[in-house]
Amino acid sequence: MKTTQMIETYPATINLDRQLLARVIDTLVACSQACTACADACLSEEMVAELRTCIRTNLDCADSCQTTARILSRHTGYDANITRAHLEACIAACRACGDECEQHADMHEHCRICAEACRDCETACAELLAAIR
Amino acid sequence: MKTTQMIETYPATINLDRQLLARVIDTLVACSQACTACADACLSEEMVAELRTCIRTNLDCADSCQTTARILSRHTGYDANITRAHLEACIAACRACGDECEQHADMHEHCRICAEACRDCETACAELLAAIR
Amino acid sequence: MKTTQMIETYPATINLDRQLLARVIDTLVACSQACTACADACLSEEMVAELRTCIRTNLDCADSCQTTARILSRHTGYDANITRAHLEACIAACRACGDECEQHADMHEHCRICAEACRDCETACAELLAAIR
Amino acid sequence: MKTTQMIETYPATINLDRQLLARVIDTLVACSQACTACADACLSEEMVAELRTCIRTNLDCADSCQTTARILSRHTGYDANITRAHLEACIAACRACGDECEQHADMHEHCRICAEACRDCETACAELLAAIR
Repeated sequence: MKTTQMIETYPATINLDRQLLARVIDTLVACSQACTACADACLSEEMVAELRTCIRTNLDCADSCQTTARILSRHTGYDANITRAHLEACIAACRACGDECEQHADMHEHCRICAEACRDCETACAELLAAIR
Repeated sequence: MKTTQMIETYPATINLDRQLLARVIDTLVACSQACTACADACLSEEMVAELRTCIRTNLDCADSCQTTARILSRHTGYDANITRAHLEACIAACRACGDECEQHADMHEHCRICAEACRDCETACAELLAAIR
Repeated sequence: MKTTQMIETYPATINLDRQLLARVIDTLVACSQACTACADACLSEEMVAELRTCIRTNLDCADSCQTTARILSRHTGYDANITRAHLEACIAACRACGDECEQHADMHEHCRICAEACRDCETACAELLAAIR
Repeated sequence: MKTTQMIETYPATINLDRQLLARVIDTLVACSQACTACADACLSEEMVAELRTCIRTNLDCADSCQTTARILSRHTGYDANITRAHLEACIAACRACGDECEQHADMHEHCRICAEACRDCETACAELLAAIR
């Protein structure tokens, strides 16, 4: 990831801690990828019928993390309301997905790893949210 | 758009009014496209330097509407918390983008049309949010 | 959709037929939504285990159509190579998804409608591709 | 990134080298983030009017890399035609964006770093494409 380098070379003011910001973006991007992969891994499991909710929540979480990562990667014309609301939405998606994946963590390693990614992401977003308020 | 047909043929229960849902999805998709196009139209204006915030907010709003449209297009393993939080985030993006575009509406027709799309979208999302609570 | 209005108010030159362009964007956006919805409808079918490939191809096609719609919605600094390559990729996704959905069209109305959306989209993209070459 | 772990725990066959695949996905995801950030950094430059093409190509490249990363993160119901066509499209986007950013690399560090991300991504995609053919 070039996140830190890109943030360091942004030519104007950034209203948030650059290090924290880079870390949150990287966590979001990792979570989005893990969720996309977990949805697909669940789809290939023999017991796919019991993983429907997991697949669905993975897809939502992948989309949510991706959009939040993009919003946090932009600093021009910063609007705290947009950032805050998307962090909150992303936290809701990560929490639901982490809870769901955790239920299958004993049976499916991909769910265990993905639950971890979701927990990390929920924590990182909450940390940034606290810094904004 | 095939939104209504797709919703009508969904094989399980949907916990929301299907007609309202279809209308909100279509409005989100239209707003996302308008914002992508408005960001690009602003980029080609001679006075691009004065449209920086408009471009940035357009890009955020396009991403937010797209993710919300996807989440609303899924009904399996429905989680009201995820839907609610993303509608709220999307409303924040549409409001900010509608406000910003409106300021340039007299000078740029694309901003006037895009502001309209954002207002419609904000209203539609708020209506659905009220139906969920 | 505000696609036509947005194209008509773009302030600079567009190197493609504006009417055709608007029609292709609308078809892409409709196909992307139909594929997202079809993946979810398949996920809720009792025979989900037999619809794994369909779900996967739907997800790919949804992403591909969305990216292509965004690229076609931008006209600033137009690069025919980018447009052409993405139309070709999108045609490949729409063809595969149309073929796959068609196999389930007799059993699942959502697959029948989605196959239709994919065929329309493949045709529209091919028409635009022919106009660029 | 959890890419390697997610690939290693995928429960079925993957028709491509898992290590190469993980590396390409990570490169795509890094490039997508860099391009989103570079578009925004360019937007904040005083000479934004001279960076229009750069911003536009960055936006295209961000979308293309993201979609390709998602497609490569799915293995269920693998279709070589879809993968191949999207790698080709992504290579076109990375090449154009790398060329464009390189022109501003002396003046803008973010363009220099982003050009690097695009070159890496173009190379990685070409390597995977060669492995598929």
